[in-house]
Amino acid sequence: MKAKIIITPKKAVLDPQGKAVQNALEHMGYKGVRAVHVGKYLEVEISGEKESVRQQIDEACHKLLSNPVIEDYHFELE
Amino acid sequence: MKAKIIITPKKAVLDPQGKAVQNALEHMGYKGVRAVHVGKYLEVEISGEKESVRQQIDEACHKLLSNPVIEDYHFELE
Repeated sequence: MKAKIIITPKKAVLDPQGKAVQNALEHMGYKGVRAVHVGKYLEVEISGEKESVRQQIDEACHKLLSNPVIEDYHFELE
Repeated sequence: MKAKIIITPKKAVLDPQGKAVQNALEHMGYKGVRAVHVGKYLEVEISGEKESVRQQIDEACHKLLSNPVIEDYHFELE
């Protein structure tokens, strides 16, 4: 089973990396870029039964993979 | 329009960050973790017509956002 996890900075948190990418895109001549947010993407291949995997991944996201104070996460299992 | 971009290391490229996360998960007692891959996730809010946005984002991914030698990317527009 594969978990695809996306971790993004919360909307209220400053995202200097996103701002830097936005500026770079503007300098390269891309028009109409209104905002950029930069986050992390993780793929975890894990064996087990679906519900227990879901619970494990959720706990791992909360404890290790994201910082819940400043980041949101969501994931899909497939 | 929002582009959701996922950038991952190519399968043939060493992914030490993924390996570190995998080891950390194992040390924390999560069983059955077979592999972890760590990549980047970007959301770009951009205005324009869909086909021209698709072309711009594809070019930006290739030139700025990813390193095509060691990374793959894919994106969705919504």
